[in-house]
Amino acid sequence: MGEFDLIRRHLTGLGAARADVAVGVGDDAAVVRPPPGHELVLTTDLLLEGVHFLPGMDPEGLGWKVIAVSLSDLAAMGAEPAWATLTLSLPGADEAWLAAFARGVDACARAHGVAVVGGDTVRGPPAAGAQLCGLVPEGAALRRKGARPGDMLCVTGTPGDAAAGLALARGELEGLPEAHARFLRARLERPAPRVGAGIAARGLARAAIDVSDGLLADLGHLLEADGLGARVEVAALPCSAALAAAPPGRRLAWQLGGGDDYELLLAVAPERLAALREAVAAAGVPLAAIGRVEAAPGIRCVDAAGRAVEPPAAGWNHFAEEGDGG
Amino acid sequence: MGEFDLIRRHLTGLGAARADVAVGVGDDAAVVRPPPGHELVLTTDLLLEGVHFLPGMDPEGLGWKVIAVSLSDLAAMGAEPAWATLTLSLPGADEAWLAAFARGVDACARAHGVAVVGGDTVRGPPAAGAQLCGLVPEGAALRRKGARPGDMLCVTGTPGDAAAGLALARGELEGLPEAHARFLRARLERPAPRVGAGIAARGLARAAIDVSDGLLADLGHLLEADGLGARVEVAALPCSAALAAAPPGRRLAWQLGGGDDYELLLAVAPERLAALREAVAAAGVPLAAIGRVEAAPGIRCVDAAGRAVEPPAAGWNHFAEEGDGG
Repeated sequence: MGEFDLIRRHLTGLGAARADVAVGVGDDAAVVRPPPGHELVLTTDLLLEGVHFLPGMDPEGLGWKVIAVSLSDLAAMGAEPAWATLTLSLPGADEAWLAAFARGVDACARAHGVAVVGGDTVRGPPAAGAQLCGLVPEGAALRRKGARPGDMLCVTGTPGDAAAGLALARGELEGLPEAHARFLRARLERPAPRVGAGIAARGLARAAIDVSDGLLADLGHLLEADGLGARVEVAALPCSAALAAAPPGRRLAWQLGGGDDYELLLAVAPERLAALREAVAAAGVPLAAIGRVEAAPGIRCVDAAGRAVEPPAAGWNHFAEEGDGG
Repeated sequence: MGEFDLIRRHLTGLGAARADVAVGVGDDAAVVRPPPGHELVLTTDLLLEGVHFLPGMDPEGLGWKVIAVSLSDLAAMGAEPAWATLTLSLPGADEAWLAAFARGVDACARAHGVAVVGGDTVRGPPAAGAQLCGLVPEGAALRRKGARPGDMLCVTGTPGDAAAGLALARGELEGLPEAHARFLRARLERPAPRVGAGIAARGLARAAIDVSDGLLADLGHLLEADGLGARVEVAALPCSAALAAAPPGRRLAWQLGGGDDYELLLAVAPERLAALREAVAAAGVPLAAIGRVEAAPGIRCVDAAGRAVEPPAAGWNHFAEEGDGG
């Protein structure tokens, strides 16, 4: 079997079966049918070996992650995922690698109702990308823009876990109980995009962004959209049991600056906080209030007594990391 | 100005201004509004240095080409282009390079009514990709599948020019008059996707594919979709004045096997050939009948006297070249 047939065999028919796919993999392009009354939400991401994933990364995890990263962008807009195309660059066609990668793509796409309808595979340095197309009712998309002074800032899940997972993968974090180590590695390698939470936040949150570059960096992007600032209470930052079990030295740096979490950061009017919390909880996702939007630009971190805390230097930064910011 | 600001500055606002773009570059994802009664046509392509373009390629040409290649997939489906996202991998942010690349993207997108609504830029080996989203009236998309024995095979433009342009770029073809050399290089570096011809062929052609891997290879893909074969008259192959001026040695290999032409190959019922020719001509695109679909699998090349011609070995083949074939 030639390389081309191998690739076609493994990368055809991945993800959910959707009745709105008229033409899937195998033609010059895919044809899909959007439902009436909806807008399309479009995003693209490219993950490179050595930049976004470690050389030798488990291909099944990579397949999961390449879909999850773009799903997180859709989640931040409150969109319901629908269709994906894949981009794959490989030095050669290794059947076991392709089969594992395809399993990861399939699992993540299927779990979120996404049909993989096309793609492009080329010979080159290891890289994988996904282009996701989601749906929102007209005018209902969440935006980065829209926060107002006095809004509460909330975050889903437990940011910082992925950065701790990366430290584990690099051998920089040792002695953790096995279950905690597994949890942190999974948070890095099998991120759970907060799709249900994003949909639940439509009409409740005033602004949203996904936390992929680190909590403070992404909060900065959200505030920048309206020229605002914020106060963040570090004692209110949610912390997983696994992260709490790690030596405390780098914990705050991971929580505030660690990338790759794919949580959602939401700004919500105080009177809607309870409703938002309930809606997000109904989607099975924890939500924590961590601070407030303020009129004065800049982000001020404070401890439980209200004293200023200097945020530790961010631990993670890749080139032009802002997803669809261009 | 930081790298990130540089990139944002150059890659924002490219292409046509479209009233159906609700959210463009600068949020987690873009939001666009499809018109009622239409299906979406989705395609993605990734061009790598050393595989799809020569190291040191003029960045403006690369910007044009990355959009043009995906537009050609839309053309083959008869779709009207609408929105694009970009993928860009660069070793560093060189402002002159970025500005030129952006000019090329902008020119090609604008010429075809496409708004560039988002993208992802990463640090890595030189590569550029585009994801295009087009529109077709419900059920009107052209497919690879659909040809029948007896159908005429037609091709737009003059396949083989791009392969001659590549030979020129590699210094393998010398002594051509300057105007011809310029024409062939432009056919390689500034391909004109046959968008108008694809739209014109809706309802007239029975099957379509774009010629990106070589005429015989792509004809093979089209025939394979229905288990058919074809007879190709090599004397009927259209030839540009520039290609006719090149030494004849490799001409037939370029015409039948050269890649990167981005022409359309169409199968049409004989009684509709005149109407198709007229519709495609109205879009400003030349069309030539080059053979017929036959029931027996396999492609038979014949000369003007009907004698079998052995097609020369294809000159171009990259890994898994089939666009959205997976």
